[in-house]
Amino acid sequence: MSLPTLEEIRHSASHVLAQALLQLFPDAKLGIGPVIDEGFYYDFDLPRSLTTDDLVDIESRMKTILAESQSFKTYTLPKEEAILFFEKREQPYKLELIRDLDVPDYTFYENGPFIDLCRGPHVNNTSEIPAIKLMKISGAYWRGDEKRPMLQRIYGTAFHSQAELDAHLVRLEEAQKRDHRIIGKALDLFSFQEDIGPGLVLWHPKGAMIRSIIEDHWRQEHYKANYDLLYSPHVGRATLWETSGHTSFYKENMYAEMSVDDNSYFIKPMNCPFHIKVYESQHRSYRDLPLRYAELGTVYRYERSGVLHGLMRVRGFTQDDAHIICTPEQVREEILDVLTLCSQILDTFGFQKKHVYLSTRPKEKYVGDLDLWSSAESALEDAIKAMGWDYSVDDGGGAFYGPKIDMKIEDAIGRLWQCSTIQFDFNLPERFDMTYVGSDGQKHRPIMIHRALFGSLERFFGILVEHYEGKFPVWLAPVQIKLLNLSSETIDYTNTLVKTLRQAGIRVQADMSDEKLGYKIRLATTEKVPFIGVIGKKEAADNTVSLRTRGSKESPLISATDLVQHILDAAKQR
Amino acid sequence: MSLPTLEEIRHSASHVLAQALLQLFPDAKLGIGPVIDEGFYYDFDLPRSLTTDDLVDIESRMKTILAESQSFKTYTLPKEEAILFFEKREQPYKLELIRDLDVPDYTFYENGPFIDLCRGPHVNNTSEIPAIKLMKISGAYWRGDEKRPMLQRIYGTAFHSQAELDAHLVRLEEAQKRDHRIIGKALDLFSFQEDIGPGLVLWHPKGAMIRSIIEDHWRQEHYKANYDLLYSPHVGRATLWETSGHTSFYKENMYAEMSVDDNSYFIKPMNCPFHIKVYESQHRSYRDLPLRYAELGTVYRYERSGVLHGLMRVRGFTQDDAHIICTPEQVREEILDVLTLCSQILDTFGFQKKHVYLSTRPKEKYVGDLDLWSSAESALEDAIKAMGWDYSVDDGGGAFYGPKIDMKIEDAIGRLWQCSTIQFDFNLPERFDMTYVGSDGQKHRPIMIHRALFGSLERFFGILVEHYEGKFPVWLAPVQIKLLNLSSETIDYTNTLVKTLRQAGIRVQADMSDEKLGYKIRLATTEKVPFIGVIGKKEAADNTVSLRTRGSKESPLISATDLVQHILDAAKQR
Repeated sequence: MSLPTLEEIRHSASHVLAQALLQLFPDAKLGIGPVIDEGFYYDFDLPRSLTTDDLVDIESRMKTILAESQSFKTYTLPKEEAILFFEKREQPYKLELIRDLDVPDYTFYENGPFIDLCRGPHVNNTSEIPAIKLMKISGAYWRGDEKRPMLQRIYGTAFHSQAELDAHLVRLEEAQKRDHRIIGKALDLFSFQEDIGPGLVLWHPKGAMIRSIIEDHWRQEHYKANYDLLYSPHVGRATLWETSGHTSFYKENMYAEMSVDDNSYFIKPMNCPFHIKVYESQHRSYRDLPLRYAELGTVYRYERSGVLHGLMRVRGFTQDDAHIICTPEQVREEILDVLTLCSQILDTFGFQKKHVYLSTRPKEKYVGDLDLWSSAESALEDAIKAMGWDYSVDDGGGAFYGPKIDMKIEDAIGRLWQCSTIQFDFNLPERFDMTYVGSDGQKHRPIMIHRALFGSLERFFGILVEHYEGKFPVWLAPVQIKLLNLSSETIDYTNTLVKTLRQAGIRVQADMSDEKLGYKIRLATTEKVPFIGVIGKKEAADNTVSLRTRGSKESPLISATDLVQHILDAAKQR
Repeated sequence: MSLPTLEEIRHSASHVLAQALLQLFPDAKLGIGPVIDEGFYYDFDLPRSLTTDDLVDIESRMKTILAESQSFKTYTLPKEEAILFFEKREQPYKLELIRDLDVPDYTFYENGPFIDLCRGPHVNNTSEIPAIKLMKISGAYWRGDEKRPMLQRIYGTAFHSQAELDAHLVRLEEAQKRDHRIIGKALDLFSFQEDIGPGLVLWHPKGAMIRSIIEDHWRQEHYKANYDLLYSPHVGRATLWETSGHTSFYKENMYAEMSVDDNSYFIKPMNCPFHIKVYESQHRSYRDLPLRYAELGTVYRYERSGVLHGLMRVRGFTQDDAHIICTPEQVREEILDVLTLCSQILDTFGFQKKHVYLSTRPKEKYVGDLDLWSSAESALEDAIKAMGWDYSVDDGGGAFYGPKIDMKIEDAIGRLWQCSTIQFDFNLPERFDMTYVGSDGQKHRPIMIHRALFGSLERFFGILVEHYEGKFPVWLAPVQIKLLNLSSETIDYTNTLVKTLRQAGIRVQADMSDEKLGYKIRLATTEKVPFIGVIGKKEAADNTVSLRTRGSKESPLISATDLVQHILDAAKQR
């Protein structure tokens, strides 16, 4: 017999949770108890608010149940009996579920005294649940509807072994320390403001400095890779979005309409239509292709405020967008070039490990010829192979308008983040009737490929904050060195040094406040600056600095000239 | 007796125009005939459309009238008689003007057989109008109202001497050749598209390249001058614009409201409120000041479509915006630093000649203490003097919220363009209740200065196109050198050279089409690239290039290595 899956373990653990809770609150009304990404939860309607002490108690009761080796049994009931069952137990939420669901039979699972309406699957016996942990309590509206009652949700998790659970908890703790929202506030990188609106990022000086370095690097790499830069407006007339189809299939993701001079306008949720307009501003011949239009274009999309999450999910974000418009013959080389550029740029930030996914044609709804699809899919697949990368195929998982490659990057603590996308589009060239004149003198439809390497600059920056834990490498650090003077006697020398460093293009800050040196060092350490230079009387006299490197406790003396070179060298390391 | 003013000459010329026209069309209905920036016009309702031949005829009749030495006489009539006068002459537009105007007396001017309702002033005699020229005909709605009749407008100009008029016509012709809309299309720099909307610029690759070089330069200079960069969203909640006051006094210039999640949002017409929000995200002390927040922030403002003009007047534009927030003691140094930076940046583009205007407190409506105003005004004035600049004072011409310096730059053909502004703001710090803790431990209100050096990047780029006549200097040129091969035999060498140049960071393009060399040279010349490199068999064999420099007809041989250095050196010249 094979081991139970993680899903079976967690699903069963949620039943055990409900059973344990009912021991404490026999009249509890039960909501639902599904498996989620990192564990499971169960929703309850209770006479009072749960406390963390309750969690400890419930978890201990759960462990007792596991030790009881209760077997899971399943059976079905017809609708009337299922209703009778929950009417007898006064479970209104379950009754609602049954009444709304129209199936011939209702599946139940029973373990020990606990019976639940449930599709399964489950473990055979509670003894097969090796390690559980309750995580937290939160509020959740019944069926996510804010007009329905607020229930209490208990989150928990379960693993194949205590060791795996422990590793998970360590990872959570590590992730918690790296939370970009907390580090972002501590390092004063960015903020969200009630008056500006949810999901709209305000980049503070230090965050903006890092963003600007990233953008500069991105632009340089794109020039080298023969991309053309574009700038397009943030609003466009409704007619544009009608042609692109956005007002029909994407409207709920768009910010509301604006009326100007009796014309209707929308803030852009995507840059593509603007790039196509540049393409169409001239007659194009095969000699003009490939065209590679790139833009750091800030787009705005409506997301429910409930799903917004720091920089990871926002309403306004800057895509590092590009559109490659080429002939079918040029596709293979273009895709390979995109993967090479992508790899190069992600490597720079320490994301050597990439998880690559190829999504192919959906079985039913799709646009474009079968030939187009299969040559595009094979171009994508061959390019991945040429890069020597492992990959998974999501068969039928492509968008209706073309196959794509998605890339997840693995951060410093092994978490995966969706990042780059390379996406064929067989739809927009048709809708905009894009053409070029081929060497045969005839009009042809070009191939269009969307691609974003970072995805969104905001999100990528959030990932970077967590990846580096706020300890940005020297080339990205908004302040590369902070100079601390020991006393007012060395202010002049410190000022001279600030100028020297700044003229060398080094980002330097000086703390010449009257605070004690210990305090200044602690402050600079919390700010996670890569280098701290301490300047006492001796240093000023000898034209030196006591240099502390982030993560080291030593502070060797270094001459001012060597200091400049040392930092410039460190900034070259990427 | 002093010479008549240009205004008197032009105003009188417009009467002469009407008189001449009435000779041709005795039943013409007269609109108005005011003086404008570069001349005058008169509007007429005529039985047929005017032709350019008519213009020649009318101009010749005007000259005859000038030679007749008609005297200008003035008198007044009471309303009824004024009405009677125009009723008799069947002049409905003049009648409308009189009926709408409520004054005790109506002033008339008479010269020869022509009498017009007019406030004056005029020359004494038509012989005092030394030089006139009719320019063009266009349509204009009566009173600018598209529901009223379309009249025919004749534009003309007049000067103190034929020499001045000739110089003006040469300048116009020169300006016509430099029109950024024409050059922008010819060099494929940018476009406006019906589907995107009027006044919304689409930057094509070559224009975007230049913009990006300008932005890079701007950022570098601002880092050196100790500015902090910010990025802020393009939309913000109505509450923000209510606090800033924009929804009360600026609403007609804003794009229409959007409703999201029952909250009202606006696209930003200005960046200031966002910068203030960054300031207010922390408690600030005098030790934090001065803060200099800079952003290349794209703002959107509603302008009537009729006033839009190429890149010079648009609806979406990128301000090179900064806000300096400082203590009163820091103001003088800050202003001087702004002027220095401004001068430095404008000089880089060849705008050495600046015309400086100081606008002081309005006599009546203003906010802020008198003390604040006078110290701000003297800080501005002293800074201008310290720069050694001439300036004019516009007494009472400041905004209600603070005094300012405006700067106009003089382009290659002597035209002035409004460009930089340095503007005190005593209003927003109050509205947002901005504070800092002083060295006395008390809360104080900081001083806030808005400043933009280019003003708008779009407009500045338009000015640059006209200033350089599209012949961008090497450091700005989107393509610095174009390589032309003489035959297919030298394709390999040309490709090698392209790589060499590109690796050196030079923006290179190659034309390896099958066209004749003469055609390729002509094409590259129309594209106004600074350097053209021709590659024949001999060049390929000797590892050289025949180099033509823009504006020169010679094409000396130069080695590939020297070529790189030559272009890099040329790109250093700013």
